[in-house]
Amino acid sequence: MSTILHIDSSARLDRSVTRRMGRQFIDYWLELRPRDVVIYRDVGRNPPPIVSQAWIAAAFTREADRTDEQSEVLFVSDELISELERSQIIVIGAPMYNYGMPASLKAWFDMVIRVGRTFAFNAEEKTWPLSPVLTGKTLVILSSRGEFGFEPGGIREHMNHLETHIRTCAHYLGVTQTHFICTEYQEFGDERHRRSVADAEAAIGRLARSLCHCGP
Amino acid sequence: MSTILHIDSSARLDRSVTRRMGRQFIDYWLELRPRDVVIYRDVGRNPPPIVSQAWIAAAFTREADRTDEQSEVLFVSDELISELERSQIIVIGAPMYNYGMPASLKAWFDMVIRVGRTFAFNAEEKTWPLSPVLTGKTLVILSSRGEFGFEPGGIREHMNHLETHIRTCAHYLGVTQTHFICTEYQEFGDERHRRSVADAEAAIGRLARSLCHCGP
Repeated sequence: MSTILHIDSSARLDRSVTRRMGRQFIDYWLELRPRDVVIYRDVGRNPPPIVSQAWIAAAFTREADRTDEQSEVLFVSDELISELERSQIIVIGAPMYNYGMPASLKAWFDMVIRVGRTFAFNAEEKTWPLSPVLTGKTLVILSSRGEFGFEPGGIREHMNHLETHIRTCAHYLGVTQTHFICTEYQEFGDERHRRSVADAEAAIGRLARSLCHCGP
Repeated sequence: MSTILHIDSSARLDRSVTRRMGRQFIDYWLELRPRDVVIYRDVGRNPPPIVSQAWIAAAFTREADRTDEQSEVLFVSDELISELERSQIIVIGAPMYNYGMPASLKAWFDMVIRVGRTFAFNAEEKTWPLSPVLTGKTLVILSSRGEFGFEPGGIREHMNHLETHIRTCAHYLGVTQTHFICTEYQEFGDERHRRSVADAEAAIGRLARSLCHCGP
């Protein structure tokens, strides 16, 4: 049995392309593995708190030394990290907003990438001091873009700060394998967009089937 | 007389490197141009709201057709855009959190990059439909990084999703000239960090003096 952490970050609750993509993936998955568990976290609807000075101070205080107030400040972070720890597959619906992640999704990453919990810091190591605590997770990024050409070699490759950024952060969540599927041309609402949505749906089906058969 | 929009986005209120860098820049500037106006916006302390479905619907409704509720939803966005419009120089204190912007700063960008206000969308244009409404602004990014090697050719160049992302977004704020100064090695707290802070301070002084003499 596997556990899937399914995160939605679109601000749109209706007519969201990434929400639909996520539901498609989960539907395909559960059809093949109905006993698997899905943890659903909707950061688009309920954004996590944004890191504060008190949060940083609490995160850098050893657990045994924390005041009750400090433990309270870390409550949401603890909860989100626990969801991550329990999951082998992470599915993130991540629309591109202004060429990067929605602020709500960045707030989620800032809550879960935490010293002593998801990464270790080795002060003796003068070049690469950070290493992930977790490992072996598979990440599926389901993204939508208003424009197009963000792929390697595309006309907007240099403006792609979403997929690249999530891939960098994912390492610190214990992700060792990442898959990326996206739709494009949303702002144009034309035939190119419709074709892109249809292609993405087919790719989601193929990916869900292929990952299903790799699982435990 | 010039107007400077000074934005702080560090979650740290004390001991923040980027807050100190911003104060240094403003101090140098006002010493030379004491009559200039500084608009200060602290998104680290008071993060702007995160874009919601209601916000998107309101932003995409023509001003004349908006309900009172929709105008209300755009209130913070209107205020932040007005601060941007009034400014010729934008100074952003932007610490690197998990290899990108703090969520609070992304929330700010998502509030100010708005159709019909800061960018125009031309549906007839099938490749580059977005163009900035504002122009001629100078952006100064003052950043701090826990690690190092994020510059072109550096060992972490591919993990730099802060400067690159801000430069992409800045185009839609009417920025035509960007300057970037950063400190590195903060997590190590060693001699390399102290040298980096000293170098940045000198660079901030030089930049403030040079930009001061270009202004109106």
